[in-house]
Amino acid sequence: MKYQRVKLGKAEVQKLIREAAEASKNAFAPETEFGVGAALLTDDNEIYKGCNVQSVISGEGTCAERCAIHNAVAHGKYAYKAIAIVAPRSAEPIGPCGPCRQAIYEFSQVNHKDILIIMSTPDGKKVDVTSILKYLPGRRFGFEDLGADLSRYRK
Amino acid sequence: MKYQRVKLGKAEVQKLIREAAEASKNAFAPETEFGVGAALLTDDNEIYKGCNVQSVISGEGTCAERCAIHNAVAHGKYAYKAIAIVAPRSAEPIGPCGPCRQAIYEFSQVNHKDILIIMSTPDGKKVDVTSILKYLPGRRFGFEDLGADLSRYRK
Amino acid sequence: MKYQRVKLGKAEVQKLIREAAEASKNAFAPETEFGVGAALLTDDNEIYKGCNVQSVISGEGTCAERCAIHNAVAHGKYAYKAIAIVAPRSAEPIGPCGPCRQAIYEFSQVNHKDILIIMSTPDGKKVDVTSILKYLPGRRFGFEDLGADLSRYRK
Amino acid sequence: MKYQRVKLGKAEVQKLIREAAEASKNAFAPETEFGVGAALLTDDNEIYKGCNVQSVISGEGTCAERCAIHNAVAHGKYAYKAIAIVAPRSAEPIGPCGPCRQAIYEFSQVNHKDILIIMSTPDGKKVDVTSILKYLPGRRFGFEDLGADLSRYRK
Repeated sequence: MKYQRVKLGKAEVQKLIREAAEASKNAFAPETEFGVGAALLTDDNEIYKGCNVQSVISGEGTCAERCAIHNAVAHGKYAYKAIAIVAPRSAEPIGPCGPCRQAIYEFSQVNHKDILIIMSTPDGKKVDVTSILKYLPGRRFGFEDLGADLSRYRK
Repeated sequence: MKYQRVKLGKAEVQKLIREAAEASKNAFAPETEFGVGAALLTDDNEIYKGCNVQSVISGEGTCAERCAIHNAVAHGKYAYKAIAIVAPRSAEPIGPCGPCRQAIYEFSQVNHKDILIIMSTPDGKKVDVTSILKYLPGRRFGFEDLGADLSRYRK
Repeated sequence: MKYQRVKLGKAEVQKLIREAAEASKNAFAPETEFGVGAALLTDDNEIYKGCNVQSVISGEGTCAERCAIHNAVAHGKYAYKAIAIVAPRSAEPIGPCGPCRQAIYEFSQVNHKDILIIMSTPDGKKVDVTSILKYLPGRRFGFEDLGADLSRYRK
Repeated sequence: MKYQRVKLGKAEVQKLIREAAEASKNAFAPETEFGVGAALLTDDNEIYKGCNVQSVISGEGTCAERCAIHNAVAHGKYAYKAIAIVAPRSAEPIGPCGPCRQAIYEFSQVNHKDILIIMSTPDGKKVDVTSILKYLPGRRFGFEDLGADLSRYRK
């Protein structure tokens, strides 16, 4: 299956970073006080935000990226172009964890776009841009590999 | 720690059920086509919706209840009074799974309210109401048990 | 569906508690140093142990109870009678979290036994015994509710 | 932090593949009947096996790779060299999902070895070998990044 490359202008990238930084303020992080924010850009140019939601229990809770996806899905949006991630308390940009890469990849099968991953400091000065296919290389597994047709979610 | 009982009027309960039924339409359920919706009522009477988000991977994805919580947290809301759950394809009301009971309980420690759990058919005719302390009885574990102070989330 | 009650002798209960306390020593808990151990008794009277496996990531890692189940399943054992839980650093016995209650419940559908939950201090002096149906009351959901036949796992 | 490269002989690789194929037979997969097996090689050359453990609930259950890790940790083993993955019902080798890549990476911080990932058909004829640093590229996050010292687990 071919994935389409996504291109975003500099202003769009900076806007997503600002939104992700804003989202990080809502983090529920009683354990570490390490807030992370994410801003997810849909195919129709809406932005859905997410933050980390910590739990005391191993296997519960979510990172900002999956939270943003859940927020978008709750609003009926499944096709994405890019996601920005900001962790204000980190001097360096941070990247998505394995479970978040998996989630981003699964949704990239909806519109076959190689979702951009934008990792930045909150001021937007130190920015790394990559894409989900680069960040989850090799043998991957999503709904299409089970034969599912996701075209009805392409909206 | 004492938890406060929550009381909702019949109209409020029916409104939450309608919102949960509405939310179920956004389910991302390529595996089972079994959509579930949830509607979460905050302490300040806003409603945040959620639906199930399936994944091909064991340990990924979320149920409607946790999705609604993630949606609410993404919007800076952590204190809740009630959650309604609707699964239109089920003839009987369905209840929250273990992980969702855990999540609801953890947030009940924010405002010390015994969050109501409303389980209903989509038409609002067959309704069961219980609460999180009844649905996760006995020895529980949340952030307060680690000594965390959640009062700053009480908004 | 009817679930069979499980009865264990005092010596068996104490043995499980000792094994759970032993298991807690293997905890991978770099974050909290709070080790928890579990000992799972199978239908054919074998014991499989587990401990918590922490992760830096929300939604990753496992508690001792699910770890013990994974250990047992890896060895081809799916039908259980009881699980003991011990957290040496806690003055009080601790109980299973929501996700662990869900896992225990799902496996109780294999042999239709109401799996005993034994919560104890490591010295076996303060012991609480309950069962999964009491600890996950009300509307539950497992593979049987999807119409799956688990009888082939009844060994 | 520097990671050490791991080298395995052909016979060792084939042995791990056989063990992983064997492990897949224990899969608890009532939902898809798609069994997966994993065999984890520790630093002291023991092998711990795992299989997928499915759940009806999104966010519960585990893949074979994490199951094998839980099995090893339950036995007090935290330092690994390689993991083999086999899915007998798939014509092609399959790779680890995002959550499993995350788990493998977190444990690679114990001994700073770039854990080998061996993906194979059950007959050992079609084999892909990669490593965790290649399979979780870019900005990663583990316990060391939180300042944790994992040296006590190096056994």
